[in-house]
Amino acid sequence: MRIAVNGNDKSQSSDLVSSLDRGLLYGHTAFETIAVVNSKPRLLVQHLDRLSSAAASLSIPLNEDKLRTELDRFCTNIEQGCIRITISIGSGGRGYQSPEKPQALRILSEHAYPEYPTSYRASGVHLGVSEVRLAHQPLLAGIKHGNRIEQIIARQQWHGDWQEALLLDYSDRVIEATSANVFIVKDELIFTPELNQCGVEGVMRNHILELATELGFKTKLVSLSLDEVLTADEVFLSNSLIGIWPVARCQDRDFKNSPVAQTLLKRLILDEVIPHN
Amino acid sequence: MRIAVNGNDKSQSSDLVSSLDRGLLYGHTAFETIAVVNSKPRLLVQHLDRLSSAAASLSIPLNEDKLRTELDRFCTNIEQGCIRITISIGSGGRGYQSPEKPQALRILSEHAYPEYPTSYRASGVHLGVSEVRLAHQPLLAGIKHGNRIEQIIARQQWHGDWQEALLLDYSDRVIEATSANVFIVKDELIFTPELNQCGVEGVMRNHILELATELGFKTKLVSLSLDEVLTADEVFLSNSLIGIWPVARCQDRDFKNSPVAQTLLKRLILDEVIPHN
Repeated sequence: MRIAVNGNDKSQSSDLVSSLDRGLLYGHTAFETIAVVNSKPRLLVQHLDRLSSAAASLSIPLNEDKLRTELDRFCTNIEQGCIRITISIGSGGRGYQSPEKPQALRILSEHAYPEYPTSYRASGVHLGVSEVRLAHQPLLAGIKHGNRIEQIIARQQWHGDWQEALLLDYSDRVIEATSANVFIVKDELIFTPELNQCGVEGVMRNHILELATELGFKTKLVSLSLDEVLTADEVFLSNSLIGIWPVARCQDRDFKNSPVAQTLLKRLILDEVIPHN
Repeated sequence: MRIAVNGNDKSQSSDLVSSLDRGLLYGHTAFETIAVVNSKPRLLVQHLDRLSSAAASLSIPLNEDKLRTELDRFCTNIEQGCIRITISIGSGGRGYQSPEKPQALRILSEHAYPEYPTSYRASGVHLGVSEVRLAHQPLLAGIKHGNRIEQIIARQQWHGDWQEALLLDYSDRVIEATSANVFIVKDELIFTPELNQCGVEGVMRNHILELATELGFKTKLVSLSLDEVLTADEVFLSNSLIGIWPVARCQDRDFKNSPVAQTLLKRLILDEVIPHN
């Protein structure tokens, strides 16, 4: 496992962090997970834009120039893999008051690209419905911050034969999957939940919305019910590592084929936004 | 700063932790802040009960026997101070799936007892009203887990002349203060918000409810509006370090005196639940 904390500079000469880091104490962090192919982090501009926006919302100082330099160096020898960027406000005492002069951390870690069966892309996945409901917090909606106990508990409760699970909010709206965004296709229109109350605004989600428009599809952000998911023509999931997974089954509904998802997926592979297998 | 991670045993020979600790990555932690006077952690049984319950909710394995032993040793020479116990599920890979065999961390840290002006107890504090609203998440309500971005942001937004700030939920209910619970007294009855949607169930809050009953007061958990706070006879705040702070002012309302709060506070000091200054 390769890790670099602040580029392992003099102030941070190891890959360990203080046990009083406020990321650990209070979850005062934000993060990105990025596909790397041929030493190039994919959709990097979008990931860094989102991270920068999260840092601003959470008042975590982010030295973007240093991060870019560290990323370049870190990814040089990664043929195919994924990296996580975690930024933490760093250490600085007990209590909720943030340090006056935060010594923020930039943590880069390299991870193997997850190996999923090829059938997930080709014929789709089994999508469960989690019992965990997402809380409404417009202050944090869309942001990929590090307060993820909801997702952790949802993931613990999965059944064994699910590959992903839908998360609804307390108003019975479908928001996302545990670690993916969700799309439905109905009458050749593409819909995905608006994320103004909760949920993470995925970089791949936004890329797919742009790509779909470019390919001539109409897209719309909507308030989405489980019934609308179950009666859609197609359902598919997205994140930066899987690209797109068509959904083959959700509850009692089988989805026979997913032409729109396959069209988009092919294009993601062609554009080298994700590896081709 | 004294820190002990898992008692600094062989598996953890320093006070540093992995930069891939899932507490840092996802906020998968719970914690307690405990007053220590004459080497004795105060309300320890209650703190450990709450921690144990949080650990169960978050599936963090907690070796209570080891923790007790480590605590005894850690507090031996603390005349007056406070300790924080943080438990984290530990490290174990990227992604929301918790490790199959978690190597959980118990982090003990010693901090100076906060020095507040004596006027806070004697004549009360200025209580603001935060613009941050708490999200409803019954799954986590009451638990002192480590997902605290709401409190962090609320604390960042305080005005300089506030000593604490009320947090309401999105239904306009008063829930708590940033790092304290809130009580009101009306016609000699003591009310505090029920915490079934959000908020932290304070050890001191529960102790005060018991103590009040013992002293002959009637207490009730209620749904509380800001207007009810502003028209109360008394308002006071509690946590394990401050004990009780009467509120002298909130918005345009001045509270002249706080006989109930002072009665309870005297008893907390007499019982050595908090230091006498």
